[in-house]
Amino acid sequence: MLFQEYWPFFVAGIILYVIARVGYAYMVEKDKKLQYKHKKNEDLQTPDQIADIDKDDSGEADDEEELVPAYPENLEHIPLNFQKITIEESIKRSNEFYELLNKRRTVRHFSNDPVPREIIANIIKAAGTAPSGAHTEPWTYVVVSSMGIKEKIREIIEQEEEINYKKRMGKVWTTDLKPFRTNWIKEYLTEAPYLILVFKQMYSFKSNGQKKLHYYNEQSVSLACGLLIAAVHYAGLVSLTSTPLNCGPALRTLLERPMNEKLTLLLPVGYPANNCLVPDLKRKSLDKILIEM
Amino acid sequence: MLFQEYWPFFVAGIILYVIARVGYAYMVEKDKKLQYKHKKNEDLQTPDQIADIDKDDSGEADDEEELVPAYPENLEHIPLNFQKITIEESIKRSNEFYELLNKRRTVRHFSNDPVPREIIANIIKAAGTAPSGAHTEPWTYVVVSSMGIKEKIREIIEQEEEINYKKRMGKVWTTDLKPFRTNWIKEYLTEAPYLILVFKQMYSFKSNGQKKLHYYNEQSVSLACGLLIAAVHYAGLVSLTSTPLNCGPALRTLLERPMNEKLTLLLPVGYPANNCLVPDLKRKSLDKILIEM
Repeated sequence: MLFQEYWPFFVAGIILYVIARVGYAYMVEKDKKLQYKHKKNEDLQTPDQIADIDKDDSGEADDEEELVPAYPENLEHIPLNFQKITIEESIKRSNEFYELLNKRRTVRHFSNDPVPREIIANIIKAAGTAPSGAHTEPWTYVVVSSMGIKEKIREIIEQEEEINYKKRMGKVWTTDLKPFRTNWIKEYLTEAPYLILVFKQMYSFKSNGQKKLHYYNEQSVSLACGLLIAAVHYAGLVSLTSTPLNCGPALRTLLERPMNEKLTLLLPVGYPANNCLVPDLKRKSLDKILIEM
Repeated sequence: MLFQEYWPFFVAGIILYVIARVGYAYMVEKDKKLQYKHKKNEDLQTPDQIADIDKDDSGEADDEEELVPAYPENLEHIPLNFQKITIEESIKRSNEFYELLNKRRTVRHFSNDPVPREIIANIIKAAGTAPSGAHTEPWTYVVVSSMGIKEKIREIIEQEEEINYKKRMGKVWTTDLKPFRTNWIKEYLTEAPYLILVFKQMYSFKSNGQKKLHYYNEQSVSLACGLLIAAVHYAGLVSLTSTPLNCGPALRTLLERPMNEKLTLLLPVGYPANNCLVPDLKRKSLDKILIEM
């Protein structure tokens, strides 16, 4: 019989099969453990995440390279220039600023009334006073007033936004946007006298050529945009905070920005169109956003 | 001879070894391809990324469930209340706001001089006027004045920051921070009369119980913090924009915030200590941050 003559092959086959199975199971298990370990550590934030850069760009200096901080290590410290105002004045001013900001509305319909460049320059200067991680000031403001460039920007964004609305954003998101009457047609991109495109710099370079990490660059730039929006409003102008989803690379190329910059926000700035309408939204009351302890 | 009798075993062993090698190489290759595919798609932003939530929480409604936007679909639109000011006044105001903000400095040394709650309330109200993705207003401001809670917060942060500085942040980061004379000892957490802990809400719930996605919640909250910082300064107070790295979960538990909230920033607010020093930093000049086209 076949089995009687060749049984050692069958036995060897079974043994080798068992070894292969056990070996494979061990490999899979090892893999899972690694993944689990990674998952567990996700909550822990590392310099790579904070500086929002690729692993390849982690900026870890070579061991032999001497580390030099971006600012002099013995940076001079000077007395803070502070004038204390009275409590009464402080209460008055805090209320005044709230009343002022509370009149601000996001505007989607602009007139083409001109705005002097000086006002825009002051607004950018105001935004430039924002705090940033380790004072890296990781922002570039590209201000576009050329109609030719505005038209190209509009073309890029409308093309991408049509795909966003129709395919990428999904039903939940587009349903949530319906009350705001938005779609992929963005007239404001050519109507407003200025488009401010805010780029975050993910890193830069120190004077000695070492890569300078920009810690918390995303948060710093968004925070600076808060000052920018307040400055626009304080100067008597209006703006729209827009996030051109998935248009970043094409707009960076158009505006010839370097690889270390990423588009964060786009704000048309100017005067509202005549008869401009805004959705009748209310803001949450203080007791909905403030918890005192 | 042993080999002559048992050669089929040796041959079988070699064949099985080859099969195992080829099979393993194939698996590894397949894995690489998957990783590559993922990498390529990273540039495309999806609702999950924008709303900054886990896949499990993607908020995609069941097919049978009717989708209802967070605001009424026929939300009324009303005329914008806008009073145009003169160009001259606009220039003057834009410069005035820049001059005001340019006096702001991040302060690390606070006095314990009391500040009326009314001022803090106005400051939070001002921050609450910020724009947000689809008007989701995804923020909670926890204002702590209780010394007991401030002490617990300090304990959590100093413990975690010691590990951050010594182990997690790495040489590059800690070297870059040296000029700012910071370390894991955070006296300001108990010195300042108020700690404002800003939480971003990653999602919430609509009145019908459906999950409400908070688009761009990270950016919206950071932007609101820009208004907050401006409001603090406008009211004649000082603050420190701090990011308690890896302390989020412990502080959320301490302050009993729900699972949909994540700590974004912590700002001590009050008056500066007498003889408060600040690093002698300059801000980038306008031509370094503004590109006109």
